[in-house]
Parts: sequence; structure tokens; C-alpha cells
Amino acid sequence: MADPWQECMDYAVALARKAGEIVRGALKEEISIMTKSSPVDLVTETDQKVENFIISLIKEKYPSHSFIGEESVAAGEGSVLTDNPTWIIDPIDGTTNFVHRFPFVAVSIGFVVNKKIEFGIVYSCIEDKMYTARKGKGAFCNGQKLQVSGQEDITKSLLVTELGSNRDPETIKIILSNMERLLSIPIHGIRAVGTAAVNMCLVATGGADAYYEMGIHCWDMAGAGIIITEAGGVLLDASGGPFDLMSRRIIAASSRAVGERIAKALQIIPLKRDDAAN
Amino acid sequence: MADPWQECMDYAVALARKAGEIVRGALKEEISIMTKSSPVDLVTETDQKVENFIISLIKEKYPSHSFIGEESVAAGEGSVLTDNPTWIIDPIDGTTNFVHRFPFVAVSIGFVVNKKIEFGIVYSCIEDKMYTARKGKGAFCNGQKLQVSGQEDITKSLLVTELGSNRDPETIKIILSNMERLLSIPIHGIRAVGTAAVNMCLVATGGADAYYEMGIHCWDMAGAGIIITEAGGVLLDASGGPFDLMSRRIIAASSRAVGERIAKALQIIPLKRDDAAN
Repeated sequence: MADPWQECMDYAVALARKAGEIVRGALKEEISIMTKSSPVDLVTETDQKVENFIISLIKEKYPSHSFIGEESVAAGEGSVLTDNPTWIIDPIDGTTNFVHRFPFVAVSIGFVVNKKIEFGIVYSCIEDKMYTARKGKGAFCNGQKLQVSGQEDITKSLLVTELGSNRDPETIKIILSNMERLLSIPIHGIRAVGTAAVNMCLVATGGADAYYEMGIHCWDMAGAGIIITEAGGVLLDASGGPFDLMSRRIIAASSRAVGERIAKALQIIPLKRDDAAN
Repeated sequence: MADPWQECMDYAVALARKAGEIVRGALKEEISIMTKSSPVDLVTETDQKVENFIISLIKEKYPSHSFIGEESVAAGEGSVLTDNPTWIIDPIDGTTNFVHRFPFVAVSIGFVVNKKIEFGIVYSCIEDKMYTARKGKGAFCNGQKLQVSGQEDITKSLLVTELGSNRDPETIKIILSNMERLLSIPIHGIRAVGTAAVNMCLVATGGADAYYEMGIHCWDMAGAGIIITEAGGVLLDASGGPFDLMSRRIIAASSRAVGERIAKALQIIPLKRDDAAN
């Protein structure tokens, strides 16, 4: 039997590339900025324009499918994941980077059926790097096969994470004390390029050994999540338990050993799930 | 009168490009790692090989000039800055990145006469981005003129810094509490790509609004320092006073206002100067 979702994936790659062109074009114009959950949680007209562009073209071709998009949810639409084929979209992962023209900005598309990610696309559009993964068929960047580092020793690990856009003093304290505990193990270092999706893709390339974050959303993880697993990495919950796409927490690691050691160091930040009732 | 140092600069650009080729070549081989000041302060044979390559070729052409190189100092040579024309060299800025193949690794060359930086070169060799600046003649990346953002409002600023390789608990605490104070202002965010030189070049492009760090060395700052000022930015000491290349502290900002606001937030880390007697 032919792969039932390959056609959807080919379509998604083409759409992500076109969306990236729109993003690159917008970087040459003046960017007008609005805020969402906090004075530093930014959004622009381009986020909304790119999401509408992607969703309208997919809806035309696959009218029975479901959608969870960052900007649609911000505008009041639900984000409950059903068994229906569902496209989970972040039109611009790294909006703060986009606003500043800091050169890591990604279009992220994840495709989920029966609550399992079937394929993922992360197009880091300023770098022109197209990361893709289809379940069971490996992960690739611009056609080159990806493989995580396989590092099992936390003391030889380079991590990626973010400080996030929550400016609640208690949350900042937990984020920094988690870094303190990890640095003290010791680890080789921590990097932050400003987008969850690109951070995860850097783990998939082997350039970093693990990514962790709490407070992100399903649209930050759905595209890159399967890129990690298809590159040989593991996804865990921040507690060390099984990964849950709607939990807003993730550890994406080159090995279970490194992932579990990170989980042991992390203090959990209380968060409302993506699929919680309003 | 012809520019007396332009020939040196042209030579340095050619050397940095060749050094970058060596670095890129080494990334394809197995990398054997040694440590320096701490279990996470890494060095490789490539650092030493590239520094020897650069210094030997400059010495051949300019035998009367002086040199301060990261690996020569690690091997016991002095790092006192005189008025003599002095080449300040970091063969691989971002050695931890290099070891992990995290894609930001730079060759940095600064040229100082009478204790003033005359030109600087930062070659981010995996990205193939050649950043250059000649005093009074502007800063460029791959031939394109650079301009800082000019941002004067800290609450709209994106910062770059690093967590460093010092694992002394007191130092880690100060580094993280400095981040806490800055995030609480609030600012838009903090990024870290793992090399001082590339972080500074990102400020020069306007992609970030300021970089600060304590604990780095003159070879991390000499190349990129003049790229900042020639792109219209300012260099300050971490205290807010005048920048001092040998102090191991820097704020590189898009405006004096943003630089001084950062200085106000920073608790100073006690450090031995680069030119201190042993």
C-alpha cells in the first residue's frame, strides 16, 4: 500500500517553502508589533498572514482535516487534539527573533493522526534550511540524513533551551535555578537561538545533545518532535515520564540517559495544558 | 598618505579565510579534546594548529610586530599590551561549539597599534560569513555594510550573552542573577550562540541590541570590538565606564543608553586582568 500521508507531506514542504519566502520578504519591510500574553510575548501581521496562507491552502485540498494554529488559537479557536488528521502550525516560530531580524526564524508544520505525529517540517527560512521527517523514514536537512550525537554522558553535553517570554518573577526564578542545577553537574554549556523548533533541529543534527523547555505549545513541538525521534533521539516529558504533545513541556535528547538526567535536575513550572478547557 | 595598515588588513582577511578552511576540514575528522582552566574549558589540537598557522605566517611578513594569541598565552606566553603593532588572535572562538559541531565557530583577529584597535576580522567559518572593520571606514559582512539597530529603549531590546565556562558556584550565581535583573526590566529576551565574537557581530548587524559578558579575554573582543564601533555601536566596561580591552569585561551596545542601562543592572564578577602579573 502506498504511504497515505506522503502526498500531504510533499504539499506541506512546498507550503513551508512558500511561507518562508513571505517571511523573508517581510523582513525587508517595516515590522509592526503587537503583544499577546505579556509585554514581551510579541506577534506581528506577518504571523497572522502566514498562518492564514498555510491553513487556507491546506483546507482547500483537505477540507475534512483539523487545524491547530498558533494565531488561530490566540484568536479564540480551540486546541483540543482529536483522532482526526490534524495540522499543527506555527507560522513563525521565533517571532521575537523575526521582529529583531535575529537570524533564526522557522515555519513549523506537524501532522498528527490518531494523536501520533506522522510527519514534521521545520523550515528555518533565513538560513534556508528545510528540516523534514516522515515516521519510519528518517529525518533530513536539505536532503541530508540527520543523526543525533548519541551522547549518553551529561557532563559532556551541550544543551539548548530558552528563557521564554513569561516575566512572572517566580517563573523566571525557576527557569534560572534549573539552569544553575544543570550547569553545576557540570555540563559543557547552554545555548539559545530563540526558536524551539530550530533548537530541536540542532539536537537532531547532533550539534547539541539535548533541548528542554517548559511553557511552549504544541505548535512549537509538533514539527520538530518527529525530526528528533527520526534522527534517533528521544522525547520525554520534563518530569522524565512519557512525552505529551499538549502538556507544554518537553525534553528532546540524544539519548534516554541524558534526557532522564535533565529531568532529574528540573523543577517543574506549573502550566495550563494546551487542551485545557477555558 | 596611503593607509599604513590596509596591507596588514588584507593579509589578515586572507589568513582568516584559510584558517576557516582548516577549521571546517577539522570538523569532518574526529576531534580529540583537552581541558584548560576547568573541566568544561575545552581546547583541541585544531585551536593550536590554527593559531600556529596564523602567527607563523604573520611573523614571516611582519617580524617586528607583537602577538597575543589565546593558545600561546595558555602555553605560558605573556599578554601585556604595548604600543607596538600587536596582533590579537583567537584561532577558534567557540571551541565548545567546535567540539560539538554547533554551527557557530569563528576565527578572530584584531590589530592594535598604540593600544587602539586599527582593524578587526571575525570569520564565522561554518556560516561562511566574513565580518571586517577598518577604523574610520565602516564595518562589513561579506562586503555588505553593517549598522547597529540604534535601539535606545532597553524594554524593546534583545540581548546576547553567554553562561561561560566558569563552574565556580558563586560565579554561576552572579551570572544568573544578572540575567534575572535584566529579564525583569523587562527586556525582549536573551540569546546565546556560544561565541563572543559572533554574538558581537550579531549586534553589529542590528539582529541583537547589545552583548555583555564578564570573564572573556582580549582575544575574544579585539576582532569584533571595532566591528561594533564601526557599525555605529558603543563599547563600555561592564561598570558603565570606558571600555578596557585587557579588563575581561565588555558591554557592546547599539546605543549608549542601552549600554548604560545594562551596566546599571550588572553585578561585577571579580576577575584577574589579562595583563596582570602572574
